[in-house]
Amino acid sequence: MDERGIIDNIFKPLAGEGAPAFGLENDTAIYSPPEGCDLVITKDVMIEGVHFPEGEAAGVIAQRLLRSNLSDLAAAGAKPVGYLLGLMGKETIGEGWLKAFAAALKQDQEEFGIKLMGGDTTSGSKSLCLSLTAIGSVEAGRGLTRQGASKGDLICVSGTIGDAGLGLKCLTGEIERDDFLIGRFQKPEPRLALGQGLTGIASAVIDISDGLALDLENLCRASGVGAKVHLERAPLSGPAKKYAAGDQKKLIELLTAGDDFELLFAVPVEKADQIPKLAKTAGLPITVIGEITGAGECQFLDVKGRAVAFRKKGYRHFSERG
Amino acid sequence: MDERGIIDNIFKPLAGEGAPAFGLENDTAIYSPPEGCDLVITKDVMIEGVHFPEGEAAGVIAQRLLRSNLSDLAAAGAKPVGYLLGLMGKETIGEGWLKAFAAALKQDQEEFGIKLMGGDTTSGSKSLCLSLTAIGSVEAGRGLTRQGASKGDLICVSGTIGDAGLGLKCLTGEIERDDFLIGRFQKPEPRLALGQGLTGIASAVIDISDGLALDLENLCRASGVGAKVHLERAPLSGPAKKYAAGDQKKLIELLTAGDDFELLFAVPVEKADQIPKLAKTAGLPITVIGEITGAGECQFLDVKGRAVAFRKKGYRHFSERG
Repeated sequence: MDERGIIDNIFKPLAGEGAPAFGLENDTAIYSPPEGCDLVITKDVMIEGVHFPEGEAAGVIAQRLLRSNLSDLAAAGAKPVGYLLGLMGKETIGEGWLKAFAAALKQDQEEFGIKLMGGDTTSGSKSLCLSLTAIGSVEAGRGLTRQGASKGDLICVSGTIGDAGLGLKCLTGEIERDDFLIGRFQKPEPRLALGQGLTGIASAVIDISDGLALDLENLCRASGVGAKVHLERAPLSGPAKKYAAGDQKKLIELLTAGDDFELLFAVPVEKADQIPKLAKTAGLPITVIGEITGAGECQFLDVKGRAVAFRKKGYRHFSERG
Repeated sequence: MDERGIIDNIFKPLAGEGAPAFGLENDTAIYSPPEGCDLVITKDVMIEGVHFPEGEAAGVIAQRLLRSNLSDLAAAGAKPVGYLLGLMGKETIGEGWLKAFAAALKQDQEEFGIKLMGGDTTSGSKSLCLSLTAIGSVEAGRGLTRQGASKGDLICVSGTIGDAGLGLKCLTGEIERDDFLIGRFQKPEPRLALGQGLTGIASAVIDISDGLALDLENLCRASGVGAKVHLERAPLSGPAKKYAAGDQKKLIELLTAGDDFELLFAVPVEKADQIPKLAKTAGLPITVIGEITGAGECQFLDVKGRAVAFRKKGYRHFSERG
């Protein structure tokens, strides 16, 4: 299949006819934003050997790429609308790969109520590279950012932390295979309902892609504040608890593993009573793990209240994990 | 510099503080679309060795990438607003390269009145790959597409055709160096003023990236029509005329070379009187090269009215030109 054949046969069914994508006949999408809304736009890239191992299944790549971008929309409190896809393929990528890639996107489009809006497909790269731009909408003026956390705000985190990192360890054979953990790595859940619920409540939000410790630093730097977090309060799944088994070094490993795609957010104390309702609506545990302090560093405290030093706060790339 | 350093030092100055990019502290841009407007969104990728030769200057890559996307906005009649950038670098890309890349973007941001809205920067690809998403706005309902050309419409083209292809030949040493031609390849001019002027006048528009012949086919397929174009009417610059020198084979080469980033559009006969004014406002020659026919093929006719066969209608990739 040439480029036109790929567009017509593989990607056009993901876009549909008419606006915004016009069956991918045009190079542009024309999108009428809903009235009274701001648009939220994010773009992530993924590189073979960096963000996923060479030979990773097409469907896993597709869903991790799309869902990591949707997680960014979740952190802004946005409802996803659609996405544009940039595929920079290797010559070895064939029709079977493309079909599996598109089938996984189609599944997720249905799950999240979104459509392909456009993009570009080319081959000739020595590494498979992908780029996705996700577009969402949020009530005007209500979009959430990392800026806005104040001294005294409670630091909350959704779900459980460290599972995706352990999932990767399962895949590399470092630990015993566990389908729950592998699923958390391969098919992260963007916390969209929670993010939308946080508008008007959270003072600052970030999604955890680089690890809880580093993303807390990112949030604090953006807000110009510091933080105190109690290590033992970090929410862990059963398998993660079993892995850490009370070992502080292993716990820290979980907090710096990344790819959790949970939301980490600050809530002013006077709004703390809304947290249980939020958790119920989103169908997710929300755990208060510490509080925002005045300008300063992000401290992680052990059970005796002593600051714990981290060798490395987080990971960015698959390759660095090797 | 690590990823954070690159964002803070190289890219943050292109984004500025506040919305939409918030100094690139967030993973998302929050953008308030202008009232009564549709958004026009496009995304192109570029791969080293495919769209540009290995070792191409950073500034040339930056401006070709940005301007080819702006050209897509021009074809929709949109005014550019901003862009998101995905940079999938090789390990060999250093600070000097990044600074030159950003300086060229800054120049173009000023020229086109746009800002960096977000993106993602990672290294570890074996081929330098880039992705750019450009966002523009157009009065609601007035965005131009490739669909809409009807039998009898005049086929028009802006500027001159084939210069960029010859510019590439200069760079590969196939023909004598000519700064005008090289400039047309390295720094294309998105025809934004013309595109905006075409709203309400043109029935269908495409920007010429794959060559006049192939992009005419693209427009006709999208509109469900055919076309008759008179080869000798194709507008050529002085250097291109000199190259073709009346040789039909060389003329066809120019019409299939691509990267012109001129606009090719259809105008209903009853609006033909507006073409001279459009040309004047845009400061560009506009040439009527043929007319739209009922459903059928795109024919290129020689001076005697005979259909000319093309071996290949257009080019997509740098590598295919080799």
